[in-house]
Amino acid sequence: MTPFHQLPSADGLWTDLRGADGSPVAIAVVDAQIRWLGAPDAVPAEYAKAPRHDGGGALVTPGLVDCHTHLVYGGQRANEFAMRLAGASYEEVAKAGGGIVSTVRATREASEDELFASASHRLQSLLAEGVCAIEIKSGYGLALEHERKQLRVARRLGEAFGVTVRTTFLGAHALPPEYANRPNGSSEYIERVCQEMMPALHAEGLVDAVDVFCERIAFSLEETERVFRAAQALGLPVKLHAEQLSDMGGAALAARYGALSCDHIEHLSQAGIDAMKHSGTVAVLLPGAYYTLRDTQLPPIEALRAAGVPMAVSTDHNPGTSPCLSLLLMANMACTLFRLTVPEAIDGITRHAARALGLQDTHGELAVGRPANFVLWDLQDASELAYWFGQRPVRAVVRQGRVAEDRSA
Amino acid sequence: MTPFHQLPSADGLWTDLRGADGSPVAIAVVDAQIRWLGAPDAVPAEYAKAPRHDGGGALVTPGLVDCHTHLVYGGQRANEFAMRLAGASYEEVAKAGGGIVSTVRATREASEDELFASASHRLQSLLAEGVCAIEIKSGYGLALEHERKQLRVARRLGEAFGVTVRTTFLGAHALPPEYANRPNGSSEYIERVCQEMMPALHAEGLVDAVDVFCERIAFSLEETERVFRAAQALGLPVKLHAEQLSDMGGAALAARYGALSCDHIEHLSQAGIDAMKHSGTVAVLLPGAYYTLRDTQLPPIEALRAAGVPMAVSTDHNPGTSPCLSLLLMANMACTLFRLTVPEAIDGITRHAARALGLQDTHGELAVGRPANFVLWDLQDASELAYWFGQRPVRAVVRQGRVAEDRSA
Ligand SMILES: [Zn+2]
Ligand SMILES: [Zn+2]
Repeated sequence: MTPFHQLPSADGLWTDLRGADGSPVAIAVVDAQIRWLGAPDAVPAEYAKAPRHDGGGALVTPGLVDCHTHLVYGGQRANEFAMRLAGASYEEVAKAGGGIVSTVRATREASEDELFASASHRLQSLLAEGVCAIEIKSGYGLALEHERKQLRVARRLGEAFGVTVRTTFLGAHALPPEYANRPNGSSEYIERVCQEMMPALHAEGLVDAVDVFCERIAFSLEETERVFRAAQALGLPVKLHAEQLSDMGGAALAARYGALSCDHIEHLSQAGIDAMKHSGTVAVLLPGAYYTLRDTQLPPIEALRAAGVPMAVSTDHNPGTSPCLSLLLMANMACTLFRLTVPEAIDGITRHAARALGLQDTHGELAVGRPANFVLWDLQDASELAYWFGQRPVRAVVRQGRVAEDRSA
Repeated sequence: MTPFHQLPSADGLWTDLRGADGSPVAIAVVDAQIRWLGAPDAVPAEYAKAPRHDGGGALVTPGLVDCHTHLVYGGQRANEFAMRLAGASYEEVAKAGGGIVSTVRATREASEDELFASASHRLQSLLAEGVCAIEIKSGYGLALEHERKQLRVARRLGEAFGVTVRTTFLGAHALPPEYANRPNGSSEYIERVCQEMMPALHAEGLVDAVDVFCERIAFSLEETERVFRAAQALGLPVKLHAEQLSDMGGAALAARYGALSCDHIEHLSQAGIDAMKHSGTVAVLLPGAYYTLRDTQLPPIEALRAAGVPMAVSTDHNPGTSPCLSLLLMANMACTLFRLTVPEAIDGITRHAARALGLQDTHGELAVGRPANFVLWDLQDASELAYWFGQRPVRAVVRQGRVAEDRSA
């Protein structure tokens, strides 16, 4: 594989492209930045002698943004998937070493280099499809050194592949096995998350945001708020795994803390929607987990739409409930399963996803002054991005000013 | 793109492979045929000096078989997909030129070369994932010259890409618009299918099997039998789109005619299952259409399993109800939505799919004497084939004795 910094520069004038509305577009890239874009017959004279990149009539969109992933972990759980389908009970799966505990164990046992190698492999699947920014959460280490290892791998992935990585500290993902049998285990662990892990990882520059899994089977509303207060004290933005299995009131709490996003939200109430609208919090929809879990409770799309809450769509890539490696497939599932319109689904994997990461000023839209992140597609019509499923219609990807994929040859 | 006949030969000894059970395997290919396979320490002396192909520890499986597709057509229906999601009624979609009629019109208007180009593009998506044999149906021409055009394109695709193509004449897919307002239109059209189209296309060597869409919204049981009788008279095997929307009794009829397969079968009765078991007819499951249509009637998997009816899994690629371009995704959906076990899903896209095309003696299994069609996967475990979704884990594909994909470099 060619190292990112040896990939060809995208600087120059990109011609013969079509925008999402079908109109002809040209893009001038200078020093890895979009310096001009507009109609091909209006290209400023200063770019007349710039190197030319022939778009070959491709559709062009902003680089995609995958705003909710658990991409870095040890092992995988295909065997558990197979056992469940063969009729094994939860106990039998647990006995065979399955469940989230198995991922925690494998993540703790893996070296940083091993985690980097396995996550690289998965990341390349997403990058080949046009992803230019991605969120990567910790949450399978559940102890300082292992959470650190996950977040360091996330940072290294960003450097190695030239993809914008936002790291999220999710120490409050699950109760570590060593706390499981203590009377006050959950509260003690949250104390450690807030007092030890978060400050240390923040001091090392490893944390862009803080997340909690607020659910009956995970952490309570009160524990969630303790984590949010600790994040606030450090000046870190928060996000929340909220109302996936029940209405805990997590979204309203998160909104009070100005959360970037509330994610899953199948059981979100109108009060939660109103609070999110007020705080500008993005609703992150995760159809891959909904599909894999064969959930039947749809997120309240119409109410979110009516309230004008921005909706993002993400893979939620994780080894247990969404071993999904295609963001375009998530756009299709958001339409097919959640009834998003096609423009909503496309906004969901571009500009609203960027907003869910606090990247709205640099990612998710084609605009002058932004880093050159865009995708050329072998498609006639933007709605084909959500219509076909299981395809790879990418012709080329420009990531951080370099031509990172090129299948036009 | 390199023409198929210029791709590198796969002849020689393939080493460092692992079989589905994890055991080490070597494969000797001579004259594009599997001449020997077994444990690496048992390679016969005659292959000691054969050219070596290093499998790099890859998992090896037979080439995949996609046994039910409508791959050749004009246009696409992304706009209709978008309109529906935006709330358009069936009438509005029809007014805007949507529905199957729009695909019939676009297919009739397209030249053979245009159809070849658009289908090539889609086919390459399937081939890149390890498909080595594929069924392609007519059924969007609905008139002799246009059905011929579709089937000729299917044959050309097979030659151009070295993929085994089985053509299926599906003249009885829908009533052509020009018959729609005649009192006896349906019967007259079936007469033309049986008396004009089928014999002519058969005489031109364009028909490997005959299929009918037997459904309230398509053709009756009696019309289906007329087509089957015509096929039988020409010595052509039959297949059936059966019991997708209602229990028409189509499967039992098809079984009486020794059908290769009954496809869709969400509403299949126990009597239908018993008849299929008796005739050795394959049940073809199409989870992509089930998913896209948001169907809730599951095919009777447990009863099929209990009866020992072989189950295949296919994309049903078509522009209206399954614009799907990944057979691995269908394996995942067969598990997730239909609760097939992982081994059932893998058999469904290999040996049972081969049986649904009458190719059980040449495709769908790794065995001595068969054409060299196999896939090397960047996976540890065969169950990962159905576990991950939206990924492309292919390392290399050997198709008809040539190395048709190679990403190991
Ligand atoms: Zn998550
Ligand atoms: Zn079909």
